[in-house]
This record gives sequence, C-alpha cells and structure tokens, in this order.
Amino acid sequence: MLVDVQLRRNQVWQRLTEQWAQTSGQGDAAGDPPDGFVVSNLINVRYLTGFCGSNGVLLLTADTATLGTDSRYVTQAGQECPDLQMLIQRATLPAVVEEAAKQGVRRLAFESATVTFAEHAALQAIDGAPGLVPVAGVVEALRVTKDDDEIAQIRAACRISDAALSALLPQIHPGLSERQIARRLEWQLYEHGADGLSFETIVAAGENAAIPHHVPSERRLRAGDLLKIDFGAEYRGYHADETRTFVVGAPPASWQRELHSLVLTAQAAGRDAARPGAALKDVDEASRSVITTAGHGDHFGHGLGHGVGLEIHEAPMISHGSTGLLSEGATITIEPGVYLPGRGGIRIEDTLLVSDGAAEPLTLTTRNLLVLD
Amino acid sequence: MLVDVQLRRNQVWQRLTEQWAQTSGQGDAAGDPPDGFVVSNLINVRYLTGFCGSNGVLLLTADTATLGTDSRYVTQAGQECPDLQMLIQRATLPAVVEEAAKQGVRRLAFESATVTFAEHAALQAIDGAPGLVPVAGVVEALRVTKDDDEIAQIRAACRISDAALSALLPQIHPGLSERQIARRLEWQLYEHGADGLSFETIVAAGENAAIPHHVPSERRLRAGDLLKIDFGAEYRGYHADETRTFVVGAPPASWQRELHSLVLTAQAAGRDAARPGAALKDVDEASRSVITTAGHGDHFGHGLGHGVGLEIHEAPMISHGSTGLLSEGATITIEPGVYLPGRGGIRIEDTLLVSDGAAEPLTLTTRNLLVLD
Repeated sequence: MLVDVQLRRNQVWQRLTEQWAQTSGQGDAAGDPPDGFVVSNLINVRYLTGFCGSNGVLLLTADTATLGTDSRYVTQAGQECPDLQMLIQRATLPAVVEEAAKQGVRRLAFESATVTFAEHAALQAIDGAPGLVPVAGVVEALRVTKDDDEIAQIRAACRISDAALSALLPQIHPGLSERQIARRLEWQLYEHGADGLSFETIVAAGENAAIPHHVPSERRLRAGDLLKIDFGAEYRGYHADETRTFVVGAPPASWQRELHSLVLTAQAAGRDAARPGAALKDVDEASRSVITTAGHGDHFGHGLGHGVGLEIHEAPMISHGSTGLLSEGATITIEPGVYLPGRGGIRIEDTLLVSDGAAEPLTLTTRNLLVLD
Repeated sequence: MLVDVQLRRNQVWQRLTEQWAQTSGQGDAAGDPPDGFVVSNLINVRYLTGFCGSNGVLLLTADTATLGTDSRYVTQAGQECPDLQMLIQRATLPAVVEEAAKQGVRRLAFESATVTFAEHAALQAIDGAPGLVPVAGVVEALRVTKDDDEIAQIRAACRISDAALSALLPQIHPGLSERQIARRLEWQLYEHGADGLSFETIVAAGENAAIPHHVPSERRLRAGDLLKIDFGAEYRGYHADETRTFVVGAPPASWQRELHSLVLTAQAAGRDAARPGAALKDVDEASRSVITTAGHGDHFGHGLGHGVGLEIHEAPMISHGSTGLLSEGATITIEPGVYLPGRGGIRIEDTLLVSDGAAEPLTLTTRNLLVLD
C-alpha cells in the first residue's frame, strides 16, 4: 500500500519536537532541538514510507524527506514510494548523514536503540557531520495507533489465520507429531493467502503444553493430551497472533476442563478491561487476578499481551510493570496462560482492536474446549 | 551438540589478544589490553557455548566463562551448556557487566557491531563498571574455520536440500505459480528433516529469473520459461545454500542453453579457484572473468559467494573487493549469475567445503540444464 509520507513526516516531526521539549529540561538532552532525523530502523522506515527493501535509511527534516538505499532497490523504491527523493549508495547510513550535512542540518537525531556503537563511531568521524542526538521510541510511539489501511491488513491476517486453523482441525488425530501439525498448519496459512508466518509456529502436546514457547518436536499426539497451538499469518507486512488449546482423542479430564475454564474466564476479564484509556497494568491485573485468586499465580509467568502490527511484538507491552494507557486504535493481544510443569498448560490468545470503548476480537475461532479426534 | 567451551574460550582469548596487539600501536586502541570480554551477539554466544535461547550474554575472562540469560531459559541452558556458570537476570547485558566488575575485570571488551548506542550508554552509567573497549569480528573470525561437528551438520543440511529438490522436480509443470512451487519445496525440506529454512525460498519464473532476489509471486509457469530456485535447509542451526536453474515444458531455446553453459563454466572456474590459501578476490575474478569475457559483466552485479554456517551469510565474503585469503575448513558458496532484464536469468550455486587443496561440493544435485514438464 502507498503510505502518505507527508502526513507521517509531519506526525514524526511533531512527536520528535514534543519529546525533545519534555526531556530538554533534563541534563542529557540540553542544547538546541534537532533539525534533522535519520531513521534507520527498517520497520520504522517501512512504516513512514512504504519501502519494503532490506536496506533503507530515511532522512527527515522539517520540510524534506530523502530515502537512502542501494542499487538493488532502485526500481522497487520508485514503485513503493514514488514521491520520495532517493539517494543510492551502498554504505547507506553514512551517505545519508553526509546528505544531512549538505542539506544544512546541524543537529541530527538518530535512533539510539538501532544504531550500533560502531556505526555511531563511524558517523561521528565523518568530516563535517552534524552533531548526533540520540532519541528513542519516536516512531514506535506513532505506530501504536493504527490507521484504517493498517487495520484492514491486520483483519486480513487474522481472517487467514482463523481459516487455516479451521482447515487444520479435522486433520488432527492421535499419532501425528507436533512437527507434522505445525507444518500442516503453515501449509494452510499459505493456502489461505498468507505472505509469511508471523513467527515460528508453536505446537505443544501433553506435558509440552506446560512450556510457554515450546518448539515443535517429534512428540506424537496421544489420546487425552492437551494440544496448544500458537500461530499467525503475516499479510502485507502485518501480523496476526492467536492461541487455542484443545483436547485430543478423549473427553477432557476434569482438571483439563477446570483449567481451561479458568483461563477462559481470565481471558474474558482481560478483553473486558482492554478499553481505550485503561492503564496497561490494570488490564494485566484484571486478567491476572482471576488466575492468582484460583491459586495459579505462580503458573502464569509472562505478561498478558503486547501490541501487534508491522512487528509481532511491538508497543504497547501489557504486563504488571507497564506504564501508560491503552490507546484507541491500538491492536493488541490478550493471552493469559496457566502452565503446570510435567502435566500440561492452557493458553487462550486473541488479537484485538481497541476501539469504540471496547476491544473487538479480530481472531474469531471458538474459544470453547474442543475435542479433536 | 555440546560445545567444548573451554577450547573455544581459549581460542577467543588468543584471538582477542592477537587482535589487540596488532591494533594497540594505533591511536584509538591505546591502553592496557582487555581482561574481560562480553559477547552479546547471539550467534556468537551459540557458537561459543551451544546455548540456543533467544537471550544470552557470555562473559569471558582468561580463566572463567559465565552465561547470562533469564528465567525462561534456566532448564534449557543447563542442558545445552552444563559446565557453565549461570547468571539469571532479565536485564541480562547490564547484569553481566556488573558481574564482570565483581570478578575484578578492569577493561571489558564488547562487540561494537552488536551493542547499540543506547545499550553502551546504559552500561557506561553503571556504578563501578569496567572500562568498555570496542572490538569487532573476534568470534566471527574463528567461526570461518569449521570443526568436524559443524561440517557434519552442514553436510546434513545440504543432503536434506538435495533430497527435497529431488522430490520436488517431478511435481513441476506449467500452470503452477512461483508461490506454489516455493511452498511445495519448503514442505519437502521439512519432510526430509529440516529444522527450518535457511532463508525465504526464491522461486523465479521467466522474466522474474532476471531479478537476483525475487520474491515468489502468483506468476504461473509457462512452457519455455526459465525457472530459478534458490533455497536451503537449516539443520541444528547450520545452513545449506543452493541454486539451480531449469527450463520448463519445452526444449531450451538456444539463448537459454548458451547462457546456462556460460554460467556453468564460470561456476566451475570459481569452484576450481576456491583452494586453501587463495586470495578471496582472485576466486571472484576466476569466475567473473569468464562472464566478463563473454560480454555479460554488467549482468552479474553481485559477489561470487559467501561463508555459510550458523548464519546463511557470514565471513568470508567473496567479491572483487574482498581482502584476505580462503581458509582450509571454510564452508562457502560459489554462485555466479547472469541476469538479462525482461528476459530471464541463470544462477548456479553450491555450498562447498574448502579442504585437501580443493573445494568439495556439499550440494550434489546435477548442474545440467534439466527440462521439467
């Protein structure tokens, strides 16, 4: 999709200026505000320009935008961001900083969580380089709130994920290995239109379901196993994230039924709390307290959720240590889990859109405890 | 596989010391040599310890090795590197630097191409932190020469790749899309034992074969198309890399036959030149000159090859600008290509082991111009 570069540049510039004003009273950030910003985090470059290549550096000033890349991407960059000035150079980051100097930039903001120590040292050594000013989280903060085009891609990624899971379920039976199930699900994701996988598919059977991020193994499904599947489609750069837990080949044991019911209640509480303006840590607490009250607080060791967009994990993080509020227009996951070492575990996860005073689930597969056989 | 941590620590220490001695005469690196080394590049940590988790930082001194990770990986780290001291802390890098100070380290080397500007600033702000000394390429240089265990994994990855391609070829016929072919090949890679994909599979038909790194599309195979497939299996962390180009559904046109023959000759010249002790740029030149002499120099815009191991692209890079010599025990690719915009392209690539005075191909699929129909 074509990105409105001018709109996003204005948003970045405003955010950079505000962030500078907030911190410039503090010692570190003293000095004049930056008059240029070099964006070298590739995901941020993609967000701001639509450019999808593997080498891109964006230079912004108050009234210009220049994309640096190399000769491999001349054609692609021209198609993806036709309105941008281009700078074609293999050593792209230093070339863009030299360009900033030519454009008269005196204080150049850079992304301090992306630029390495070695890159920074090389930039500082450039003759006539602008002063380099570290900033962090400027573009990431803008990315939290999705626009209509972004929401459409995330909806599509979630729809593909649901459809793939739906096609997979009738194929599952005792005897299949975790790996076989993962590969079949991935096949279905592509068959239903995925451009890629959101992350390495997690398929965890029986006692392995107690491992939050289990890597699919040769472990074969047996009757009575819990089966936890965490997966998602990537579509046009945007991600879906969904977890469901099933029982295989036998009616659920009572402990499985009770654990599932507990996690389901906790997940509903988290979804209900995920309203625009809610404190992130309160959303975590609303869900976590259900599990803690049931005596399983020690068996839920991870955060409740995270933002989803151009990255599978992005701002905002939703955990007990989170600061800040949930924004309208954010896309997030709510994914409580209870893990009993040696026995199994349950996680239920949806991708949701925070809007209209509530959170709308975008992944729609039933959360009921299905028996697969 | 279990890594001999003691052996590799000694190798790193020796390399670090040598590198320091070579550069300490120069201005930047003045001062006492480092008495500690914090390795935070995850691939380097895996190489030195066998630890495969997503968060690991290794602290080395002349006679200690300590692995920092977080609570998610306590069990896994204990299994993968049983002989290491462990430090369990979520903010792992700062915790490891504090540990270095406790161990009495005064000058701590760090990987300047991995540590970000922001991380470095945070480490410098630690009360009582050792002096921080930037170094680069220390572990990467050791990784060039593979040991017997590593070679066995790369052989296995190449064997899986050949077997998967062999299973795919009878399925290819006009009408299939590039994407369908990519997904079927990936399925076969997993069926034959791959742990993952070396990289996103390239399948390029007809005019798309002229794009070196084409992303598989809905473009369907037509009789007379060239079909370029670049792919590989990952096995236990090690990678294979292989490219073959075919003709689909019709006898090759004369230009296709001639172009294929040219690239085949160039590839053989590159393989022949890839002997232990050869200058890397001479290996590139041996192959490139064949293509240049035929008038296609402008149609071969990339380097001749690269190292393959724990990363799909690692040292040594083999191009006209490379410095240094080819080492015995290196695993590399040789992959010349000729790309005719709008018409198509040919690339032939093998993964090879440099040993016994020559380069042994590890990917063994025929390089002949096969017709698939």
